[in-house]
Amino acid sequence: MEWRPTIGSKPVITLTTDFGVEDPYVGMMKAVILSIAPDVRIVDLTHGIRSHDVTEAALVIGSSHAYFPKGAIHVVVVDPGVGSRRRPLLVATEHAYFVAPDNGVLSQIYAGSARMACLELTARQFFHHPVSQTFHGRDVFAPVAAWLSRGVEPERFGSLVENRVTLRLPEVRKSGRDGLAGTILRVDKFGNLVTNLRADKYQERLQAGKFMLSIGGHRIDRLCRSYRESKDSEPFVIWGSLGLLEISCNQASAARRLEAGVHEEFELRFE
Amino acid sequence: MEWRPTIGSKPVITLTTDFGVEDPYVGMMKAVILSIAPDVRIVDLTHGIRSHDVTEAALVIGSSHAYFPKGAIHVVVVDPGVGSRRRPLLVATEHAYFVAPDNGVLSQIYAGSARMACLELTARQFFHHPVSQTFHGRDVFAPVAAWLSRGVEPERFGSLVENRVTLRLPEVRKSGRDGLAGTILRVDKFGNLVTNLRADKYQERLQAGKFMLSIGGHRIDRLCRSYRESKDSEPFVIWGSLGLLEISCNQASAARRLEAGVHEEFELRFE
Amino acid sequence: MEWRPTIGSKPVITLTTDFGVEDPYVGMMKAVILSIAPDVRIVDLTHGIRSHDVTEAALVIGSSHAYFPKGAIHVVVVDPGVGSRRRPLLVATEHAYFVAPDNGVLSQIYAGSARMACLELTARQFFHHPVSQTFHGRDVFAPVAAWLSRGVEPERFGSLVENRVTLRLPEVRKSGRDGLAGTILRVDKFGNLVTNLRADKYQERLQAGKFMLSIGGHRIDRLCRSYRESKDSEPFVIWGSLGLLEISCNQASAARRLEAGVHEEFELRFE
Repeated sequence: MEWRPTIGSKPVITLTTDFGVEDPYVGMMKAVILSIAPDVRIVDLTHGIRSHDVTEAALVIGSSHAYFPKGAIHVVVVDPGVGSRRRPLLVATEHAYFVAPDNGVLSQIYAGSARMACLELTARQFFHHPVSQTFHGRDVFAPVAAWLSRGVEPERFGSLVENRVTLRLPEVRKSGRDGLAGTILRVDKFGNLVTNLRADKYQERLQAGKFMLSIGGHRIDRLCRSYRESKDSEPFVIWGSLGLLEISCNQASAARRLEAGVHEEFELRFE
Repeated sequence: MEWRPTIGSKPVITLTTDFGVEDPYVGMMKAVILSIAPDVRIVDLTHGIRSHDVTEAALVIGSSHAYFPKGAIHVVVVDPGVGSRRRPLLVATEHAYFVAPDNGVLSQIYAGSARMACLELTARQFFHHPVSQTFHGRDVFAPVAAWLSRGVEPERFGSLVENRVTLRLPEVRKSGRDGLAGTILRVDKFGNLVTNLRADKYQERLQAGKFMLSIGGHRIDRLCRSYRESKDSEPFVIWGSLGLLEISCNQASAARRLEAGVHEEFELRFE
Repeated sequence: MEWRPTIGSKPVITLTTDFGVEDPYVGMMKAVILSIAPDVRIVDLTHGIRSHDVTEAALVIGSSHAYFPKGAIHVVVVDPGVGSRRRPLLVATEHAYFVAPDNGVLSQIYAGSARMACLELTARQFFHHPVSQTFHGRDVFAPVAAWLSRGVEPERFGSLVENRVTLRLPEVRKSGRDGLAGTILRVDKFGNLVTNLRADKYQERLQAGKFMLSIGGHRIDRLCRSYRESKDSEPFVIWGSLGLLEISCNQASAARRLEAGVHEEFELRFE
């Protein structure tokens, strides 16, 4: 693991959970981290993942982690199986570290990393005691991230494992002779519908000519470069900031306008 | 007060309020703190306390503070009496400091601390001026916490007081010959119903044998060790991460399922 | 620009956006900032601005910025015109720096600053690449703030501009012979109705004698110094913590009670 990133003198821990911000759960995780690593920087990625939605968390950490400094430690706790036999993991890639349950929440990390090591967290001396059966975010993942940020070698937290749970995230499929079928992955606060079409794969094709996107009973044939390019409130498609195609309206919610949400499928035809 | 905790070189201030995160009120408190103590660490415990709900805040700070490093300074501002004659307090325990209005919001701290000193904040040179009648979080509590974090001696903020407002938090009562009557203290984001039964007092008795918990028209007789142990979505009880008995469902909201909420009472019978 | 404030050794960046906290957008901005300036302090002012509501953001930053330490860098991203020809700006005043789109969101800063310099951000080497057309918060404003916090001279980010977009915020008008007409600017989490009457202009007049405020069909003639001064739940007016007159109820929502909201007008008559 000599290829693993250095954590450096200004370590960063990010937190992604489905805990919300009304309860003191996130604050407790930070308390445990600061008790171990008083200097570490803690950044909330989001605590607004829908309760128990491992897929949503996988997408959020998958699309966000690359913006953080090399060597950042990402704690991802969407963990409906807490206290059961699902394993707690530490994953090192060439860019970053991830501490999370083995429930597929790191699927996009596995898919996108050339080199990777995956350890099962078993060294209980790095846990917060007593270890509850209901809150490993506080008792397992937070303290492990904190000790890691202080320079404890990854190997000391447990043993390498080869297999791990991987989610099947919705893929873009062929549809008809020259069409594609895609899925809405996420609706953001503005009502933008984030699809699973990646710019690096499909941008050229969409730019090249005419297309027709069908979702629910609605049809969209406009590609805009910016929200403001649309002079009305009709929906259009746009390459969004996560590198994915989005269905949007200018200053209005496409989700409400199209009555569409997560998991909804759409079809794309080219002329 | 030689027993009071050292604040140390890496002080932590935590914030617990009913301000929400939509308004700039929390940001203003942080602005005032950073203007005085640019190096202090600030952690949001939660700003999601229900408006004016002193009892909820008392429970949240009571169950969370012990996870923070020794010498942490906890600012708790749920303060419906702001600007009236209710006193602003600084409380030192052997573990931590608390800055809050004298309205009972620190009741669990008083109950749980062997040694304690309680001062009324009167030294106006440590306040932010002009002192408003509506926002002592910004003008009194935040700046006092900041000066305290910088090493100002507690005694300089005011004089010791002996009496203080204490809330009567709902207690577990006997019910019938061998039963208990408890109360729902809190509903968390997942819909878990947090009760007032403490693990250290009642865990053995619940583990020992059969029981029947009645709430609304519903009956629960299952104790699970983890959420996942339940294979269906029926409610069960579980020792939660705050050290209190919770009524939960696996990946569903017990609150919605049982149509129960805060202040609801329940009965527990043993066979 | 020798009058501009020093940024100093402990720089602060504040964030005000309409992004909410459910999506990872704010986290991405912080990731970009920390990749450039690992030591900078980041404070969330609020991410709860209503989507696309430039006026609300102008009011929030206008009433909050003065509480932060001199030399703070305020990033304000409510940016419905992102990707269009609206310019990105860096504004320096004698007290602080502001990084924001040229859409009027800094109107209160312009109005309240004796000295000011306004630059259009054109130096793309300080942007995050690739620069998206949909998220300049991450790709333009965050990295510019980060480089500024590290001591890059303001002049290096672009050229001075003279004109800029300014919003007309609702003004207090005369009404009848001796009356005033005002507007509700904001409803806070507690249901307080924040008006546009400034204490420094109107406090004396309101204190001096009897008045009658009419809003919807309701009439209010009480001025309280603190919320608790009111012994019932009837609405009253109070000088709020933003230095503006507020319509409030003791431990209840004036907005709900009066069925009033943002943009609502009211009349004030003196006897």
